[in-house]
Amino acid sequence: MLDITTQLTTNPKQKPAPDELGFGHYFTDHMFILDYTEGIGWHDGRIVPYQPISLDPSAMIFHYGQSVFEGLKAYVTVDNEVLLFRPDQNFKRLNNSNDRLCIPKIDEEYALEALKQLVSIDREWVPNAPGTSLYIRPFIIATEANLGVHPSNRYQFIIIMSPSGSYYKEGINPVKIMVEQQFVRAVRGGTGAAKTGGNYASALKGQEIASKEGYAQTLWLDGKENCYVEEVGSMNIFFKIDGKVITPALNGSILPGITRDSMIQVLKSKNIPVEERRISIEEVVEAHNNGTLEEVFGTGTAAVISPVGELKYLNDKLIINKGEIGEVSQMLYDTLTGIQNGSIEDTFGWTIRL
Amino acid sequence: MLDITTQLTTNPKQKPAPDELGFGHYFTDHMFILDYTEGIGWHDGRIVPYQPISLDPSAMIFHYGQSVFEGLKAYVTVDNEVLLFRPDQNFKRLNNSNDRLCIPKIDEEYALEALKQLVSIDREWVPNAPGTSLYIRPFIIATEANLGVHPSNRYQFIIIMSPSGSYYKEGINPVKIMVEQQFVRAVRGGTGAAKTGGNYASALKGQEIASKEGYAQTLWLDGKENCYVEEVGSMNIFFKIDGKVITPALNGSILPGITRDSMIQVLKSKNIPVEERRISIEEVVEAHNNGTLEEVFGTGTAAVISPVGELKYLNDKLIINKGEIGEVSQMLYDTLTGIQNGSIEDTFGWTIRL
Repeated sequence: MLDITTQLTTNPKQKPAPDELGFGHYFTDHMFILDYTEGIGWHDGRIVPYQPISLDPSAMIFHYGQSVFEGLKAYVTVDNEVLLFRPDQNFKRLNNSNDRLCIPKIDEEYALEALKQLVSIDREWVPNAPGTSLYIRPFIIATEANLGVHPSNRYQFIIIMSPSGSYYKEGINPVKIMVEQQFVRAVRGGTGAAKTGGNYASALKGQEIASKEGYAQTLWLDGKENCYVEEVGSMNIFFKIDGKVITPALNGSILPGITRDSMIQVLKSKNIPVEERRISIEEVVEAHNNGTLEEVFGTGTAAVISPVGELKYLNDKLIINKGEIGEVSQMLYDTLTGIQNGSIEDTFGWTIRL
Repeated sequence: MLDITTQLTTNPKQKPAPDELGFGHYFTDHMFILDYTEGIGWHDGRIVPYQPISLDPSAMIFHYGQSVFEGLKAYVTVDNEVLLFRPDQNFKRLNNSNDRLCIPKIDEEYALEALKQLVSIDREWVPNAPGTSLYIRPFIIATEANLGVHPSNRYQFIIIMSPSGSYYKEGINPVKIMVEQQFVRAVRGGTGAAKTGGNYASALKGQEIASKEGYAQTLWLDGKENCYVEEVGSMNIFFKIDGKVITPALNGSILPGITRDSMIQVLKSKNIPVEERRISIEEVVEAHNNGTLEEVFGTGTAAVISPVGELKYLNDKLIINKGEIGEVSQMLYDTLTGIQNGSIEDTFGWTIRL
């Protein structure tokens, strides 16, 4: 196992008030950095004061998008302990993303150890007001100073952390989403299953169009036949139709969400039928028309569950469950957030105590 | 028109020897920077000594890939003048890329003026050995320090310049390319027609596979039906079949190459039939089998023309024009490089004298 050196800040920042947190605005006092140099491997793991990254203007990250990232959360329990939620899965997925983006793999155990040390050092930054959490962002960027198009020979693996407010300050409000017809997020053979910057950059335009029409998120269809449901915004999507919960199977262009996987496991544990399979937008519309479309919701680290109250497809506006959160959505939200903050027993072995 | 301030370096770098140049390794003494701030617009255009870029670790470019770039070249003529090749087209395309990536548009005339001033200041960096040029890289990166997924509210538009060696030191050698079956570069509705980092990151994996099998480049098929030819490596592609030159039409997933457009115009001016249309890989194979596939070549800023001597598709290896550069490829190369370096009269009005 590689070493981790620590240099503590001499100038700790003021912590923001819990109700000012929002998402991704504030950062803790420290960050973790690990360098990669071809011929040497990953080296010089270190915890240092949060500080700017300085790179040559020709650094590859500025030109060719070679980057991957992860997102996970730490929570304070009622017993004032800190829990991490399935961090091993994040580092495993990071390595899968690395493979697709031609980035050298990291040592997952070492990364987890680094993360634990970093959270311990910034322990006081984990917020404890209801619904708040510490959002953790591991990421890797290509840093070689060279304009040739090829995998970089240098990288930095960095972890930064941001205390984040409650996603649902005023209760869970279902959102309105719009089926995107013109733009595509990803296609089989592309990078859709990897957590890499380009997927998010590509999705901005559809999001902009949806926003202008008053919709919170874009529902993405597949890039090949433009009829199968893929994701919603940057979340996975679930449909409850006639008592069964259906989510698109991992087909190579959908992100394998860790929240998605957790939801499937919770559903199975409660004996609620759940299917991972291809689902067309026409099937969703038909289910709505014959009265069997009971719930629709997105899943992701930030919101955990985001119920969908209205779905716009072509000229139709489908109202789902009277625009209210459904029973299963609420159960999943309560169960997962309960496990995450330690108020429900974790029978799945998902949480790691710091 | 906005102002441009200039701060000259007090510490000029040593210029590399012409035979050490390579591509994208060395950078000139100065760079141009223009900032964007929401509510203010683009501001503070300045030429400064070449220097690192310092950004918060949460800057969006490190996470969500919101970036665009361009590539063009400056050449020294036999009369020791400096020519820029179609720079207006680069800034026009940059704005098209900006639109797709939700980045605010730049003033194209202002950008051209900034570029001219920058090249003038680093005039001595434009190499003049045969085949050498000054490669120019304008690019825009999202710099807002925020982990929310939305278009950034801050950007930097930067121009850096790199003296580059001759692409063909020992004459033009046709390359071997391989048709990619598993991975996809882009799909209609995605970002393939924009010059953005994600496209290049996505293409690395196919390139890695091709390299391992001894091929120089990947031939990309379309992401929808996986049978129509799109690009080769990061170049546009042309086929000469039975006296006609065919290149894939701009369908939304292909980069609208400026070299591609120039080649089409040169072909037309020479009365060589040229078609922009969909072309399947099966049509190419059939033409090879019936002896009408006369030439294949890629086009791009770096190489201008890259002839293809061998094309691998499934288990077939098609040898093209006995593995030698074809007549039309050679004519196009000579004509375009001649116009670029001023040795052939520019009847198209493409070059701009500094």
